Amino acid sequence: MRHRVAVLGASGYTGAELVRLIATHPGLAIGALSADRKAAMTMAEVFPFLRHLDLPRLVRIDEIDFAALDLVFCALPHATTQAVIAALPRRSRIVDLSADFRLRDPALYQKWYGQPHAAIDLQAEAVYGLTEFYREEIRAARLVAGTGCNAAAGQYALRPLIAAGVIDLETIIIDLKAGVSGAGRALRENLLHAELSEGTQPYAAGGTHRHLGEFDQEFARVAGRPVLVQFTPHLLPMNRGILATVYVRGEARDVHATLAAAYAREPFLRVLPFGALPSTHDVRGSNFVHLGVVGDRIAGRAVVVCVMDNLTKGSSGQAVQNANLMLGIEETAGLMLAPLFP
Amino acid sequence: MRHRVAVLGASGYTGAELVRLIATHPGLAIGALSADRKAAMTMAEVFPFLRHLDLPRLVRIDEIDFAALDLVFCALPHATTQAVIAALPRRSRIVDLSADFRLRDPALYQKWYGQPHAAIDLQAEAVYGLTEFYREEIRAARLVAGTGCNAAAGQYALRPLIAAGVIDLETIIIDLKAGVSGAGRALRENLLHAELSEGTQPYAAGGTHRHLGEFDQEFARVAGRPVLVQFTPHLLPMNRGILATVYVRGEARDVHATLAAAYAREPFLRVLPFGALPSTHDVRGSNFVHLGVVGDRIAGRAVVVCVMDNLTKGSSGQAVQNANLMLGIEETAGLMLAPLFP
Amino acid sequence: MRHRVAVLGASGYTGAELVRLIATHPGLAIGALSADRKAAMTMAEVFPFLRHLDLPRLVRIDEIDFAALDLVFCALPHATTQAVIAALPRRSRIVDLSADFRLRDPALYQKWYGQPHAAIDLQAEAVYGLTEFYREEIRAARLVAGTGCNAAAGQYALRPLIAAGVIDLETIIIDLKAGVSGAGRALRENLLHAELSEGTQPYAAGGTHRHLGEFDQEFARVAGRPVLVQFTPHLLPMNRGILATVYVRGEARDVHATLAAAYAREPFLRVLPFGALPSTHDVRGSNFVHLGVVGDRIAGRAVVVCVMDNLTKGSSGQAVQNANLMLGIEETAGLMLAPLFP
Amino acid sequence: MRHRVAVLGASGYTGAELVRLIATHPGLAIGALSADRKAAMTMAEVFPFLRHLDLPRLVRIDEIDFAALDLVFCALPHATTQAVIAALPRRSRIVDLSADFRLRDPALYQKWYGQPHAAIDLQAEAVYGLTEFYREEIRAARLVAGTGCNAAAGQYALRPLIAAGVIDLETIIIDLKAGVSGAGRALRENLLHAELSEGTQPYAAGGTHRHLGEFDQEFARVAGRPVLVQFTPHLLPMNRGILATVYVRGEARDVHATLAAAYAREPFLRVLPFGALPSTHDVRGSNFVHLGVVGDRIAGRAVVVCVMDNLTKGSSGQAVQNANLMLGIEETAGLMLAPLFP
Repeated sequence: MRHRVAVLGASGYTGAELVRLIATHPGLAIGALSADRKAAMTMAEVFPFLRHLDLPRLVRIDEIDFAALDLVFCALPHATTQAVIAALPRRSRIVDLSADFRLRDPALYQKWYGQPHAAIDLQAEAVYGLTEFYREEIRAARLVAGTGCNAAAGQYALRPLIAAGVIDLETIIIDLKAGVSGAGRALRENLLHAELSEGTQPYAAGGTHRHLGEFDQEFARVAGRPVLVQFTPHLLPMNRGILATVYVRGEARDVHATLAAAYAREPFLRVLPFGALPSTHDVRGSNFVHLGVVGDRIAGRAVVVCVMDNLTKGSSGQAVQNANLMLGIEETAGLMLAPLFP
Repeated sequence: MRHRVAVLGASGYTGAELVRLIATHPGLAIGALSADRKAAMTMAEVFPFLRHLDLPRLVRIDEIDFAALDLVFCALPHATTQAVIAALPRRSRIVDLSADFRLRDPALYQKWYGQPHAAIDLQAEAVYGLTEFYREEIRAARLVAGTGCNAAAGQYALRPLIAAGVIDLETIIIDLKAGVSGAGRALRENLLHAELSEGTQPYAAGGTHRHLGEFDQEFARVAGRPVLVQFTPHLLPMNRGILATVYVRGEARDVHATLAAAYAREPFLRVLPFGALPSTHDVRGSNFVHLGVVGDRIAGRAVVVCVMDNLTKGSSGQAVQNANLMLGIEETAGLMLAPLFP
Repeated sequence: MRHRVAVLGASGYTGAELVRLIATHPGLAIGALSADRKAAMTMAEVFPFLRHLDLPRLVRIDEIDFAALDLVFCALPHATTQAVIAALPRRSRIVDLSADFRLRDPALYQKWYGQPHAAIDLQAEAVYGLTEFYREEIRAARLVAGTGCNAAAGQYALRPLIAAGVIDLETIIIDLKAGVSGAGRALRENLLHAELSEGTQPYAAGGTHRHLGEFDQEFARVAGRPVLVQFTPHLLPMNRGILATVYVRGEARDVHATLAAAYAREPFLRVLPFGALPSTHDVRGSNFVHLGVVGDRIAGRAVVVCVMDNLTKGSSGQAVQNANLMLGIEETAGLMLAPLFP
Repeated sequence: MRHRVAVLGASGYTGAELVRLIATHPGLAIGALSADRKAAMTMAEVFPFLRHLDLPRLVRIDEIDFAALDLVFCALPHATTQAVIAALPRRSRIVDLSADFRLRDPALYQKWYGQPHAAIDLQAEAVYGLTEFYREEIRAARLVAGTGCNAAAGQYALRPLIAAGVIDLETIIIDLKAGVSGAGRALRENLLHAELSEGTQPYAAGGTHRHLGEFDQEFARVAGRPVLVQFTPHLLPMNRGILATVYVRGEARDVHATLAAAYAREPFLRVLPFGALPSTHDVRGSNFVHLGVVGDRIAGRAVVVCVMDNLTKGSSGQAVQNANLMLGIEETAGLMLAPLFP
């Protein structure tokens, strides 16, 4: 028997990626798809790459019978999401992919998102969805908040190191390279092929990117005291993939050993041999994360490189992994698809 | 129980694509992987994107115990293949992905490949692997010859039209656009990113491309008389994907109806509504083929557009589909992966 | 002394390309730049790649003193252009890059553009800007209408052949591959990097593309009777470049000789040796056109391949070339920039 | 009158870029082109994008009459170069684009390049070619050593800051993103379009990249004491462009003011307004460098971002700029070409 799920916001990239993953998932079936502005269209019209699937027609959210569903994936824009989720039946279990429930503290939310939170009780209830570090809470949660994709990459590189005390906490720098699908299906000049291909540039630099709110919240929790990191994302001419180059102070061998030990039993996290560094090519379209560590000619410095697919492990794959936990399905179900290369 | 298979030539793109597909195939398991020049390496070293799989180490072909295998995928270069396959045990069932056994007539082989065939008896025995048109022969075959990827695209567009007599046979033109992975992992200047990205050019134009041998052989068989088509392939700055724009003379509605009827029950072939044309984006990484038909302002002209992923349906996906038939597995097993978009 | 020119519509790609070319043009200087919605901005804000130039601030068209200008480049959208040009002082000399004045016949304009022309007298006066075929008219013209970029590619391949009578006129097919900048800076989903890179698709197929209006008009003029061609454009994952693969019936050697003779003295048109075919890589960012011809194994068939940069020779480079003629400057002035490779 | 120059190594990317730039240079003319393995070929055969130029046929170096030349550009591979330049007539003035003469200290050369230098006297004589910081020495030099392209990017960001003492010297990190043409025309699997497009990865990380030798040499010279930086280059799916993200400790406003003052009169170096960061798109194909500075939410931290085209300002454009100085031509001659966008 398959659990019936809905995807709210099925006309965006994370929505489509959810449908792609669920298409070959043995334990999930799509019961409803919503897209307010494209209601009444078929998914084949919105995303012809899903043409081979037998999918329900797109509807407005208010047309969905939530009582008939076991779980709701919510892939709606930031801010909209709060109102939608607040209006869902209390019994609905929800995996949210927006930014709305990632920060627990209403003040922190207001600081990073520039407006007060409209569903503070839900915010308090939501579990942060970085699966490997919140497994038990996720299993029991009603509402799981998917992480930022960049925030996930940085945390996979750093959480075990902060927890183990093997690196200095004052000098962490995350230089991140991101593919364009992370920006969603927004119609902006800088996302056009003509303006994005064949070049690169930083964005939201200087301590202004919203995922810093997640780093602050989570690293403080792990360290037991505030940890401020520097974070510079760059937009790259590729569609999928995040590569985080993380500069830390600590013994490189210790850094590597700590990560290797922390992730030894994780099905999706792979630590490469010491000195080897990963490529985003090697995880594209998959739920896997590859991590590598090198030292430097300057003693006491190390670089951790973490790669993932922002739409899969950084977003929709993580969401399915969390849904698996919530529904009591095997955690890896539907997620062992190999990356696509070349 | 899974059937044990070997992949000979596992260090090339079609070999890697076979491993990718078999990784989530419910009925196949990899028993051996060969790569003569990379013997003793692990697949993770050759293709880090397969790092998560538990795979046998690469070996030389002569190290493989063929008696322990149910089927052999042969993804070796042209010409080499003949000798290798001729030396395999007579009981081994083989799906070949090279060009060596596509042409039945030794003279035709010599004409297009410039040398005599070295295994003429096997050539006679081989079944042409265009699944939808040779299903029963493939089921019973010992040796199946995978089609050229371009040749498959052209045939999906044309075979039913030729068979039904709805188009003129003297005026067929196939203008084809192909991604670069079709050229394999060869080290050639024109395949470098710096020389291939951001531009396009024709190659093997003027009736010289070897896949014309397949068109000649197959279209003559369908028509019952020789059919010569014009064929111009172009290399595009993309890794996967073939788009064949096929110009025919005939009533466009008849052309569409003929294709729609021919493929109505095919699991992987989708004919779009009349007037809609497909994109390679919509089949990338999948075993699906999308076909579209439009008419023209000039009466009696039609254009058929056929798209597929050259590495999947055009090569390794086709090979797995044929292996499924040969092993008595469900034909679609392991092949219903959705395309990757974006 | 430099001639002072204005660029109307300087915030689009053809406008920016004009500024790029004029930046190193020995005989032109920019006197005014307009962009209604971006008026008061600097070009460095709109196009940071022009930051090094000392340019006037963007203004609204009505702020420009046309009396102080020797020539006006009009790079505005279709339909808008008619009204703008009709309102310019009668003494202004104009090179228009829009589609508004390409078709001489008001009925033909209405057919292809779906509305009546609003400046029929100007339409009658405008000279078609395909430089090599309208040189004397352009020299004397007040208003020159830049050609469609696809239309230019097709005409360079075909005009001499039609004029010389070396090809059949009933069976011409133009299969065209175009880079995305030809679509302009429009915000459309299919032009996003995430949706356009790594794949290809046809558009405006089946005899519906507006550049057919130009083919019809011009080929009829050359042939002295109607000539209908088939035309299928495809959108490719590259920013600049057009490659037209033109299928004709005629002796390939005659076709080659005819083109070679026609263009022997043209500074920007290069005919490759017989049998060699060009690549868009070889003309990117330049005003050059490369043409190649091959025969086919079927006697009496030939393929002509024509490549150009749609923004340069297909649009802004052509415009500068025409302006040079109109202003009595050397025709090649400012246009001998080598292509950019890789 | 034009100065006659030779390009040794004209079949590589930097050689071709030299020819591209010289093609429209008012003071230089190409007297000879060499390419040992492609001797006797035309440049149009090796680089069809240069087809429109009237160029001498490729020859072997020993066929060149150096007495007839005013200057020699040497664009040969590392190590080969030493022997070639040592054998040139003593009166030949040379701009070298290889790595062979960048390091003044034979021990440092041996450390980074793994072999003793074969022309130590020439090594001592060579002037380091970072134009803006060695202008007078270059004017007088017989042999100028072009800088590493990555090394140039890092130095433009850092030299004025080190000289002014506005940043801490112990904590400098250069995270660099580089286009693939920097790797040259080498036939390597990781440079194939199929393996490089659509993804990114670091290379030569952990203090092992040879350009660190240049950083060490030059920063020590500026600071008057050793300065060790961390440096991690990444390969990006683009052909041209370098973006260096440089993390420094210091007051961001001071950092910006120092760079702005240092480069106020430089024709090719542009410092953006404080807080604005540049894109490689904005310098592609040009000799311009754009620099930007932002602060961070952590006081006392700043990020400098420097972009350039690796083949132009990072290599062949720099070479022409240096040649201009050596020949007494205006420094910017032939180099004011606007970038190509999109």
